[in-house]
Amino acid sequence: MLIRITFLGTGAGMPGKDRYLPAILVEDGLRKILLDAGEGVQYRLFEIGVSPLKITHIFITHLHGDHVFGLPGLLATMAMLGRKEDLVISGPSGIVNFVKSSMEIVGDPPFHVRIYEIEPSIGIKDVINEENFSLQCTLAKHTVPDCAYSLNWRTYVGRFNPERAKELGVPITLWKRLHMGETVVLNDGRVIKPEDVVEIRSSGLVKVVYTGDTAPADSVVEISRGAQVLIHDSTFSMIEDGNLIWNQGHSRSVDAARVAKEAGVERLVLTHISNRYSDPELLAAEASEVFPNVIAARDLMSLMITS
Amino acid sequence: MLIRITFLGTGAGMPGKDRYLPAILVEDGLRKILLDAGEGVQYRLFEIGVSPLKITHIFITHLHGDHVFGLPGLLATMAMLGRKEDLVISGPSGIVNFVKSSMEIVGDPPFHVRIYEIEPSIGIKDVINEENFSLQCTLAKHTVPDCAYSLNWRTYVGRFNPERAKELGVPITLWKRLHMGETVVLNDGRVIKPEDVVEIRSSGLVKVVYTGDTAPADSVVEISRGAQVLIHDSTFSMIEDGNLIWNQGHSRSVDAARVAKEAGVERLVLTHISNRYSDPELLAAEASEVFPNVIAARDLMSLMITS
Repeated sequence: MLIRITFLGTGAGMPGKDRYLPAILVEDGLRKILLDAGEGVQYRLFEIGVSPLKITHIFITHLHGDHVFGLPGLLATMAMLGRKEDLVISGPSGIVNFVKSSMEIVGDPPFHVRIYEIEPSIGIKDVINEENFSLQCTLAKHTVPDCAYSLNWRTYVGRFNPERAKELGVPITLWKRLHMGETVVLNDGRVIKPEDVVEIRSSGLVKVVYTGDTAPADSVVEISRGAQVLIHDSTFSMIEDGNLIWNQGHSRSVDAARVAKEAGVERLVLTHISNRYSDPELLAAEASEVFPNVIAARDLMSLMITS
Repeated sequence: MLIRITFLGTGAGMPGKDRYLPAILVEDGLRKILLDAGEGVQYRLFEIGVSPLKITHIFITHLHGDHVFGLPGLLATMAMLGRKEDLVISGPSGIVNFVKSSMEIVGDPPFHVRIYEIEPSIGIKDVINEENFSLQCTLAKHTVPDCAYSLNWRTYVGRFNPERAKELGVPITLWKRLHMGETVVLNDGRVIKPEDVVEIRSSGLVKVVYTGDTAPADSVVEISRGAQVLIHDSTFSMIEDGNLIWNQGHSRSVDAARVAKEAGVERLVLTHISNRYSDPELLAAEASEVFPNVIAARDLMSLMITS
């Protein structure tokens, strides 16, 4: 399995040099998931050649303008392009109203929007539970309710057996879904499971956590345990006063590093970087003293996870 | 008097190559006026080095997403930057609600927003009437109510007399306003008129008309009479079927040129250009057969008007 994470916007609050407002694209071969939708996200999608029609899920961490004001334009463009497929959106209380008032401008879209409105709380909540993908959330520490999300994939390493698939009459268009671990239903009603056509050698879990805006929080440590990648608020440098930053619901580089260390994640990515830092490497260097496997996100940077 | 018009976004509907969504900045030395606020307008302002704090007026033609979804982010950034000065917004029915629901996300801003909500109709309506600046609007022909705006400046060509200004005790900070034709009130209550300190040699009118989205319309011809610059919808090329385009509430290059010719404007600028045209010069060439003094707008292009 291959998961690609592309940082479309790594800024904080307002536009800065080379940094768009927060948005991250996660692609797993079947889904294209947006984490937050800061203003300009549809420009970034255009730049990297991903059609808004292909976006399957949009998970909003919290209803601050810099994380959500790109959503109405994206929905408008989906409608203009004549999207037919359902779109899944999640977000904290208020997301339904926000989408509704956007739709008053956009008009009745030709597609259905399924919204999960979450009241995040300490403790881990299940939001989506599909066969090989699930979404969980917990309450991060911000000035408004912020969902820190965990995206989880059950993965299989295995050899796809095309002869067996042909024997079973599985159309080629469904092979990819089966190879990625999804159960499919054929036109004649038969249910085909991955193990029917894939010689599974090992299975595992891939986990990506994204905090949105947060001060360092135990709830984030909990949800991050065992993650391959933790994408954490790192608005400020360690030279800032911690209490001041935490009261604003944000983290410093070293705060993010401590959370990563305590949760035992494999890799930490710093994002939501204040405009006062022209070179985000400063923040990564600070964090690496506490947690070595860290990078600072830059706009249009991609990360790959294989398993 | 010097007026600078900068095209921040010249696209239509959705982002395209090199084209942001509609927004135009008009600067007259005292005011910085935005005409429409498509998504990304605050990125463009950042690029050209104009702080959102300096924007004095935002005139929205109509409530379609591509013309207005940059407004919430701009208001959010103004609030974050601690703006204190009043902001003037105008737009058709619905603009008050749109600003209000944006403010639910932005929070209570530290500045006051004065909104002119207009019901545009055939015939010319006064919206703002200041001493040497006025805003008028008429109903353009679109699928939703669209205000075609006329921005009008009374101009003076004259020599500023600094000795006279000093004699009258006018502080230097007010000289520019007086030279630009504004009456000012001193701290002691005395009223100083431009003619008190400027030797006026001639006076005149500068007029800029912006249509927003429109099919060719008599009302637009009427409001455009005598304009130095008409900025007109030119979404499509002349090779498209007129009736089809007009029914969508848009114009072709030659439609815009005919309106410009009939109104007797000095100069025509084509904007709101569909993504299907990678080179907008095609549209300008078509229009020039009907109306020679025409250019096609490009993102970040500036025009100057002097009088």
